[in-house]
Amino acid sequence: MKVLYRGKTKDIHVLEDGSYLLKFKDDVTGENGVFDPGANKVGLSIKGSGKSNIMMTKYFFEILKEKGIPTHYIDANIEEATMTVKPAKLFGNGLEVICRYKAVGSFIRRYGMYAKEGQPLDAFVEFTLKDDERQDPPITEDALHMLGILSTDEYRELKDLTKKIANIIKEELEKKDIELYDIKLEFGRAGENNELVLIDEISGGNMRAYKEGKYVQPLELEKLVLD
Amino acid sequence: MKVLYRGKTKDIHVLEDGSYLLKFKDDVTGENGVFDPGANKVGLSIKGSGKSNIMMTKYFFEILKEKGIPTHYIDANIEEATMTVKPAKLFGNGLEVICRYKAVGSFIRRYGMYAKEGQPLDAFVEFTLKDDERQDPPITEDALHMLGILSTDEYRELKDLTKKIANIIKEELEKKDIELYDIKLEFGRAGENNELVLIDEISGGNMRAYKEGKYVQPLELEKLVLD
Repeated sequence: MKVLYRGKTKDIHVLEDGSYLLKFKDDVTGENGVFDPGANKVGLSIKGSGKSNIMMTKYFFEILKEKGIPTHYIDANIEEATMTVKPAKLFGNGLEVICRYKAVGSFIRRYGMYAKEGQPLDAFVEFTLKDDERQDPPITEDALHMLGILSTDEYRELKDLTKKIANIIKEELEKKDIELYDIKLEFGRAGENNELVLIDEISGGNMRAYKEGKYVQPLELEKLVLD
Repeated sequence: MKVLYRGKTKDIHVLEDGSYLLKFKDDVTGENGVFDPGANKVGLSIKGSGKSNIMMTKYFFEILKEKGIPTHYIDANIEEATMTVKPAKLFGNGLEVICRYKAVGSFIRRYGMYAKEGQPLDAFVEFTLKDDERQDPPITEDALHMLGILSTDEYRELKDLTKKIANIIKEELEKKDIELYDIKLEFGRAGENNELVLIDEISGGNMRAYKEGKYVQPLELEKLVLD
């Protein structure tokens, strides 16, 4: 089993049949020992977080499958904290698509002159490049097109699919009285038809969720969701 | 004559008839004594730069007028380094619209993973917010719309007008064998019809120009253009 890539929070192995095995680690992104889903570094290690992330990811990817949303998911092994997925081609060297329902984090750091912390946003979508060295810069439709990362049609498709997925997650969380503030998704193309699919994971690590106005830490969120 | 606003490189006074008088100073933006058109601070003072900027601005605004481009310009007094303009309403607290022909500066700092320094860009337009505290963040069409800064039509109008103006400046510079790499423009609404107009200045301070592959300093640029 060949290691294709060692990431901050996951390693990717290639299986004999060509599918990929994602091994979830106990490392989470953050700064100075504090979890931050927007951070570019591993900030701390939390025992059991790999297993917790795979449980939540399995839970949401299976809901998405039922609703007909294309993803890279094949199956998951909770004990091993691994997930088997279809190999996918990234857009450029990787894009993140963020959907926001409340203005927090980097949105306020950028647009705080015009928006108040916690202000409602109507499923507002933005794109950032995965580029640790350049702090995942935000990028416009025109720049994505000009740099050959997305066509105009792909941009629209990704934006629509992001809203659709974020709304499903939001509704699922609402059933547990949890409010989704924002979520960060990744996409690729997979399969014979080069289909646009959701990739990576859906866990506490790539969303901000609040309960009774208080931020819910990823491990706590996973307990509340899977309870 | 009332002072309405004291800016980094210009002060704005209100005249008795309601028009504005812009007084160009000898201060230019930069860091540590080095000129940088993208900087948010006054980096140095160059004797005669106010007068030089007003000469170049008058030169270009008069060319734009001939070509039917709406601007806030009324007239200029070179000796006093002042320009009389129509009062204009800003979009939000001020927007900058950048048109790029070669990839340099903040474009490379953000998108260096996908673009090479000096790579040709086809009159690529991007918008940034004027916000010193937040380092003039770039902003997408969707965010401008959502934050109530621009309508979708205004976005398109501003983008088209920016390309049109940048192309005129580019052609003028080409007559002197100077190559325009990028230019930063500001817009507002002025007059009875609330017309969309170019505001602020057009000088070495808001563009990057090269001659024989070498960057031309603003004062030198103004000498070459007005020669």
